[in-house]
Amino acid sequence: MKNIIVGQSGGPTAVINSSVVGVYEAAKELGSTHIYGMVHGIEGFLKGEYIDLKDVLDEEKVELLKRTPSAYLGSCRYKLPPFEKDREVYEKIFSKLDELEIEYFFYIGGNDSMDTIKMLSDYAKENGKSQRFIGIPKTIDNDLPITDHCPGYGSAVKYIATSLKEIIRDNESFGVEKPTVCIVEIMGRHAGWLTAGAALAKGEDCCGVDAIYLPEEVFDIDEFKARVKHLAETKSSVVIAVSEGITTADGKFVCEIGAENAPVDAFGHKQLSGCGKTLADIIHNEFGLKTRAIEFSTLQRAATHLASLTDINEAIEVGKLAVKAADEGKTGMMITILRDNNYGIYDIHDIANVEKKIPTEWIDSENKQMKNEYIEYARPLIKGELLPIFKDGVVCHLIRK
Amino acid sequence: MKNIIVGQSGGPTAVINSSVVGVYEAAKELGSTHIYGMVHGIEGFLKGEYIDLKDVLDEEKVELLKRTPSAYLGSCRYKLPPFEKDREVYEKIFSKLDELEIEYFFYIGGNDSMDTIKMLSDYAKENGKSQRFIGIPKTIDNDLPITDHCPGYGSAVKYIATSLKEIIRDNESFGVEKPTVCIVEIMGRHAGWLTAGAALAKGEDCCGVDAIYLPEEVFDIDEFKARVKHLAETKSSVVIAVSEGITTADGKFVCEIGAENAPVDAFGHKQLSGCGKTLADIIHNEFGLKTRAIEFSTLQRAATHLASLTDINEAIEVGKLAVKAADEGKTGMMITILRDNNYGIYDIHDIANVEKKIPTEWIDSENKQMKNEYIEYARPLIKGELLPIFKDGVVCHLIRK
Repeated sequence: MKNIIVGQSGGPTAVINSSVVGVYEAAKELGSTHIYGMVHGIEGFLKGEYIDLKDVLDEEKVELLKRTPSAYLGSCRYKLPPFEKDREVYEKIFSKLDELEIEYFFYIGGNDSMDTIKMLSDYAKENGKSQRFIGIPKTIDNDLPITDHCPGYGSAVKYIATSLKEIIRDNESFGVEKPTVCIVEIMGRHAGWLTAGAALAKGEDCCGVDAIYLPEEVFDIDEFKARVKHLAETKSSVVIAVSEGITTADGKFVCEIGAENAPVDAFGHKQLSGCGKTLADIIHNEFGLKTRAIEFSTLQRAATHLASLTDINEAIEVGKLAVKAADEGKTGMMITILRDNNYGIYDIHDIANVEKKIPTEWIDSENKQMKNEYIEYARPLIKGELLPIFKDGVVCHLIRK
Repeated sequence: MKNIIVGQSGGPTAVINSSVVGVYEAAKELGSTHIYGMVHGIEGFLKGEYIDLKDVLDEEKVELLKRTPSAYLGSCRYKLPPFEKDREVYEKIFSKLDELEIEYFFYIGGNDSMDTIKMLSDYAKENGKSQRFIGIPKTIDNDLPITDHCPGYGSAVKYIATSLKEIIRDNESFGVEKPTVCIVEIMGRHAGWLTAGAALAKGEDCCGVDAIYLPEEVFDIDEFKARVKHLAETKSSVVIAVSEGITTADGKFVCEIGAENAPVDAFGHKQLSGCGKTLADIIHNEFGLKTRAIEFSTLQRAATHLASLTDINEAIEVGKLAVKAADEGKTGMMITILRDNNYGIYDIHDIANVEKKIPTEWIDSENKQMKNEYIEYARPLIKGELLPIFKDGVVCHLIRK
C-alpha cells in the first residue's frame, strides 16, 4: 500500500519535473500501490483532478520527463485559507486523502507552496489525522531560507550566464565608433539572486557584463547614467544586467519612471514597459547612443535544453529524500540542500513565507559587480549538462495526454 | 603564395564563423602563404585592420570557432560608394590588396554585403585588376535570392522552434480558468522567414503556436483580436508568433499603433515598444486577459549553443567552395545552396540588393499557419547538433585577443 501523492505549485522551473521523478522513483522502491500526481496542484486536487504516475511513466518517459520544462502535472497559485476560518476546504482535502488511502503528501514549490505544507500538517496534527506532509524546495528565485540553494536556480543561472555570453559576443560585433548599450532585464522582484548569476558570464573568453544592478541596493539613476556614459566612451559594447525589481530611493520600481508623465496607448491605457526598456530609452534619449533592451522572460525558467546536471540531480534527490523522510515518520518539514553535496530537513514553520536575500557583503557596490564569495557560491550549481533528446531538429518533451 | 582575405559583414549569425573556418581550411589546402581576415569588414580593412588567421587558428581553435556566435573577425555595415562617384576608396582598397599580394577576396554577408562583392569585381574588371571576388551567403533572414536558403537561417529557426516549445510548455502550466496569452515577436522586417520557423515547434509532443503572423500579409487588427479572444475562450494557453515587420493595410508598422496617441516618456520622447508588446497590451486592455510579450531579440541569431549541425556544415562548405571557385578563375559571383545537398554559383549582379519573400502559396492565410510545403522546406535545415564545449558550466567561445 503506502499510497502517496505529489503536486507541483507556483512558477515553473527547468527542473521541477526532476523532483517528480525523484518522488516517483523513491515511492516505487517503497512499494507504493498508487503514486498519485495532483493535476494543477492542490487546486486541481480539490476538484478531483489527479493521475496515477504508475500508469503513465516508464524508464524511457522518466528520461524525457527530466528533460521537460514547466510543471508536467500542471501548476497552480492557490493559497489555503487559515483553517480557523474555513474548515470545509480542509475536510474536503482530507476526505479525498482518506478515500484514496494516501499516507504521504508531497508538494514541490517555493515560499507560498511551503505554506500549504505548513497548514496541512498543522491541521493533521490538531485533528488527529495520520497523513504526513513534506515540502520539496523549488524556485528559480533562490529565495527560500535555511536551504543553501533551491532546485531550479542553478539551471536558470546556467541559461542566464550562457545567453549573456552570446549576447555580449553579438553586441561587440561592430566597432568602437558605434557602441551599443544593451540592457538585459532578469527576473526577481525582491531578491537579486538570478540577476547576480550574470556574473558567471565572465571568464577567460568573455569580459562579462559591465555592471549588475540588484534590488538589494537602492537604484540611483544618476549613477547609472554616468556609468553607462563612461563605459560607452571607452568600449564598443556595453552590456548591463538589471533585476526587474530595482527601485529608486523613493521606493518606486524603475519601470514606473518612464510612466511618470502618464504615457497612454491608443485606448487611453497606461503602458508599462519593463525596467530594461525604460533604462534603454533613457540612455538613448539622453546620450543618443544605440541601445537595445532584452528580457529573458519565461525562457530563463523554461530552458531545460540548457539545464544544469547538478541542478537536475539535486532536484531528483530532494524528491527521493522527501519520500524517505515521510516514511521515517517526519511531517511538517521541508528537505534542504546543504553546502558540499549534503542534504538536511527543517521545520516548515521556519521556512514558509520567509524570503532570503543576497548577503550584502557579496555585492561589490562600487563596481556594480558580484564579489568572489558569490561566484564561489554559484559556480558549482551550474555545472554539468544532461544532453537533450532531439527529434526532427527540436528538443523532445513529455506531456500529459 | 595565393594570399587570400576574408571578411564578415552585416548582422551576425550563429554560424558566420563556420564560413571563416571553411575559407581558412580551403586556403590552407591551396597552400596560401597568408590567410588574412579583415577586422570589422571592409571598413576596418580600409583602416589597415587585419589579422593573419594562420597566426591565430589551430585545430582546437577551429573547433571553438565553429561554436562561437557573432562575427569573430568583427563586422561592419559599410556601403561602398559607386566608383563613378568616388574612385579614391577603391584605389585605396586595391592598393592594399596589391601591397599584401592578395589574389582572392571573400566576403561573408547578406544583400548589402553582396553589393560590395559586385562593386569590387566590377571595378577590378573595368580597371584590369587581377583579384577575384566571391560572395559567401549569410543571413538569418533567409532573404537572398537564387540560393535555396542561407547559412544562419537553419540555426535561427532551430532556436526559435525549440524556445517556442519551452515557452508553450511554460505558458500552459496553469489551468484553463486563467488563460495566458503570450505574443512572441520574431525578427524580420520585410520577409517572414524567421517567423515562419515558429511552425516547427509543432510535433507529437507539442500543439505548436496558435497563429503565425507574417509581414508578407496585411495585418488586420480586428481579425487578430477576434482570433485571440476565441482561442482564450477554449485554451488554457495561447501562444502567437508575430514578425516584427507586420504592417496594417495603411502601411503602418504595428508597433506604431500603440504610439498613435503619442505616448511620451518622462523626458518628452516618444516611446516605441515592439509589435509583440503593443499587441499584448491591446489584448490585455480590451479583454482583461493575462498577457505576456516575449522578444527573442539577438538571442535568435547568437544562440550557437543550439546551432543546427546541417547549418554549420553548409556554412563551412560555402566557405570552401568560394575558395575553390576563385581558384578556378571565377569572380563576381556568390556560392549558392541547392536543394538536396548540392551547391551552385551565380552571378552576383542577380543577387545583390534583391530580397526574397516567402511564396504566398506556402502560407495558410485562413488558419494563420504555415502549409506543409514550408515545413518540408525548413525541416531539413534545422537537423543535427554540434555539442557545445562547456567550461565551469558555461559554453566556451573563441575571441580575438
